[in-house]
Amino acid sequence: MEEKVYADLIEKLKQKDIRGFIQEIKDKNEMDIAEFLTELPDDKITIVFRMLPKEIAAEVFACLDIEKQEKIITSITDKEIEYIIEELYVDDAVDMLEELPANVVKKVMRNAKSDTRKLINQFLTYPENSAGSIMTAEFVDLKKNMTVRESFERIRKIGEDKETIYTCYVTAADRKLEGVVTVKELLLSPYETVIEQLMDKNLIFAHTTDDQEDVIELFSKYDLLSIPVVDKEDRLVGIITVDDIMDVMEQEATEDFEKMAAITPSEKPYLKTGVFTLAKNRVIWLMLLMISATFTGDILMRFEEAFSVVPLLVALMPMLTDTGGNAGSQSSTMIIRGMAVGDIEIRDIFKVVWKELRVSLIVGFILAIVNFLRVIIMYPESTAVAFVVSISLFATVILAKTIGCTLPMLTKACRLDPAIMASPIITTVVDACALTIYFSIAVAVLHL
Amino acid sequence: MEEKVYADLIEKLKQKDIRGFIQEIKDKNEMDIAEFLTELPDDKITIVFRMLPKEIAAEVFACLDIEKQEKIITSITDKEIEYIIEELYVDDAVDMLEELPANVVKKVMRNAKSDTRKLINQFLTYPENSAGSIMTAEFVDLKKNMTVRESFERIRKIGEDKETIYTCYVTAADRKLEGVVTVKELLLSPYETVIEQLMDKNLIFAHTTDDQEDVIELFSKYDLLSIPVVDKEDRLVGIITVDDIMDVMEQEATEDFEKMAAITPSEKPYLKTGVFTLAKNRVIWLMLLMISATFTGDILMRFEEAFSVVPLLVALMPMLTDTGGNAGSQSSTMIIRGMAVGDIEIRDIFKVVWKELRVSLIVGFILAIVNFLRVIIMYPESTAVAFVVSISLFATVILAKTIGCTLPMLTKACRLDPAIMASPIITTVVDACALTIYFSIAVAVLHL
Repeated sequence: MEEKVYADLIEKLKQKDIRGFIQEIKDKNEMDIAEFLTELPDDKITIVFRMLPKEIAAEVFACLDIEKQEKIITSITDKEIEYIIEELYVDDAVDMLEELPANVVKKVMRNAKSDTRKLINQFLTYPENSAGSIMTAEFVDLKKNMTVRESFERIRKIGEDKETIYTCYVTAADRKLEGVVTVKELLLSPYETVIEQLMDKNLIFAHTTDDQEDVIELFSKYDLLSIPVVDKEDRLVGIITVDDIMDVMEQEATEDFEKMAAITPSEKPYLKTGVFTLAKNRVIWLMLLMISATFTGDILMRFEEAFSVVPLLVALMPMLTDTGGNAGSQSSTMIIRGMAVGDIEIRDIFKVVWKELRVSLIVGFILAIVNFLRVIIMYPESTAVAFVVSISLFATVILAKTIGCTLPMLTKACRLDPAIMASPIITTVVDACALTIYFSIAVAVLHL
Repeated sequence: MEEKVYADLIEKLKQKDIRGFIQEIKDKNEMDIAEFLTELPDDKITIVFRMLPKEIAAEVFACLDIEKQEKIITSITDKEIEYIIEELYVDDAVDMLEELPANVVKKVMRNAKSDTRKLINQFLTYPENSAGSIMTAEFVDLKKNMTVRESFERIRKIGEDKETIYTCYVTAADRKLEGVVTVKELLLSPYETVIEQLMDKNLIFAHTTDDQEDVIELFSKYDLLSIPVVDKEDRLVGIITVDDIMDVMEQEATEDFEKMAAITPSEKPYLKTGVFTLAKNRVIWLMLLMISATFTGDILMRFEEAFSVVPLLVALMPMLTDTGGNAGSQSSTMIIRGMAVGDIEIRDIFKVVWKELRVSLIVGFILAIVNFLRVIIMYPESTAVAFVVSISLFATVILAKTIGCTLPMLTKACRLDPAIMASPIITTVVDACALTIYFSIAVAVLHL
């Protein structure tokens, strides 16, 4: 919403021009109204929320974040709660209830009608990140013996409250999914056509227990607007719409970013996460990695004499380990991301290793040459050291890229999340290898 | 497509049962047919492609990757090319033409009708990653004085070839966008209602020159199925549909992953990118970072004496720099991602720094204690070194997290892409700082 409109609404509220306020706000997008409410001082939110026309109140409520929802729920009447919970799509209701404290959940559920309560309770049982946990129950179902005309009548009658009307689902008497038909097909067909002739029987659907990542893949592959979700008996129990899938895509990518930076993922946005939660999500991985680095220290202690004699070897260490870590992280990032979006499969492992090997030969060679020149320019007396570190760099880059591409694929093959085999772990592993190579070559070449 | 269906289709082809093959394939999803074609040996693709019924050929063609498209284009007749290019949505045609070699582009353009050619040429001029570059021209436009009945007639007439019919765009005589109306609203309204009364005048739209990331934000915020794109004079020139936005979201996230791993992003999937391109995209950043690490080497050379006397100081270096790098990367990743999805704004910088400071105090303290215990257990004689390294660790974690959160935000404030201030650069900066702190404390405490 523009600044001017915002200021105008505030002005109307200050002058207690409620009628003018409602007149102005009722045509706004519900997301903009929710943003407007969020900017208000806490004690005003509920007051202004209650001024909203009934028909938009539930939609605006669904756009608010959980803190504001809780504030409103705890200060409105039971009747108002009943209205909101009945109007909310079941997926939005479930999202909210999963976050609210138990006593508030009780208050909400007490006010829901028995059918809604049953539905919500059923939806609450689906495991996290499953198709069931993100689906909603508001879809248009048709029967295959209906005509296009009858279908339109049904859509007109029940369509208002459905999350999408553009894809309709054809079910049998036992609620088994038989086909899908789009409103586009209905619109482009004569009124007397029977749905059975129009419907697509090549069903693309998900099971309630499918992982949400698999559902994302179906959406991207088939360019869907919604997907039906069936239970174990192939009965249609819900649908997932593309707007919810976009949120899930964003959330999954964020989780991968966090895992790849050695952070335990959290669902809440950064600014709303407490300091202790943030610290907890980070310290565990940092500690594991710190303790793993003990190995590297051990390796170094074995070469104590070498670096006491030639201190330049120590000065060049960070360059070597950082470059190795970066080279390995590049490979692991590309492979992890490639597997996440479905471009790379486990069966491609040999293709990948062969490719990385050739890339690392080129990259390693160029870096080694540049590094050799740099070292002899800066330390003209130390050609032998320059030689040692450049050879080590070459070997390290090759090793780092090989480790960087194989570890994520092996992790995936073990059915673990490859995203953990990212920069932090790769760096630690590569460090140990790089330093072993480096000092072994140094001892041999420099006769230390 | 299931294995069985696939084998069945191959069998029909082998037996030259063309009629049976067409019968079987024509109800399949176009994406599945494209996959089937892709699995065929190269010399068979065009032959089988030409067997496809005309009405699905263009759709299947749009789903093929660029190599297969090129193969087909170069071996079919001019008439067939004309048919395909006229049937393709203009965004798919543009995507293809941007990738094809010049001589093939010429062949295609020669066969396009003059209107199509003009449209394609116009679309080809929009800058990369702009809204214009991802939009398409196939939308349903209505006039505000039409009734619902007339609108449905128009949709029936022109809807077949439109990328979406579910949101219709109301334009004035000068092609300026005046409103949008959904098919849902049309379906739920009486036939005599005039569009002007139904249409939403609160327009959410993009300009052709807007960045595609801004368009993604509009889609996520307002849960859109499509968005109108207007030119400088506010005339409607195209629309972007949600399926294309999902592809762009995936592509933008991939780019961020690559940038954050110090890789120059490329558009092609990993397995289709050549070894030299991969090497080029990686070596530049690696070299810059390698040369930056020279600073760290310089710093170390200043403390040459210190580590000749106490070699354990060297052995603990990787643990210190790795932990610092990891701690800094955690912060920078969270901030970069938070800014990418719109959770964190530049104005939040003080909130962010204050939060990171508190997190780093907790995390740094815990790590320092654990590390102190580990070192005195492993090297009982070296309590003083254990003290030095643990104090340095504490300071490094605080510094790393402060650098990790501020650098991306400052980069964004300078209108540069914050994703470059990720793990690799943070690690290099933190290394130099950590080692300076470490050896300065060592010299002071151990009187070296």
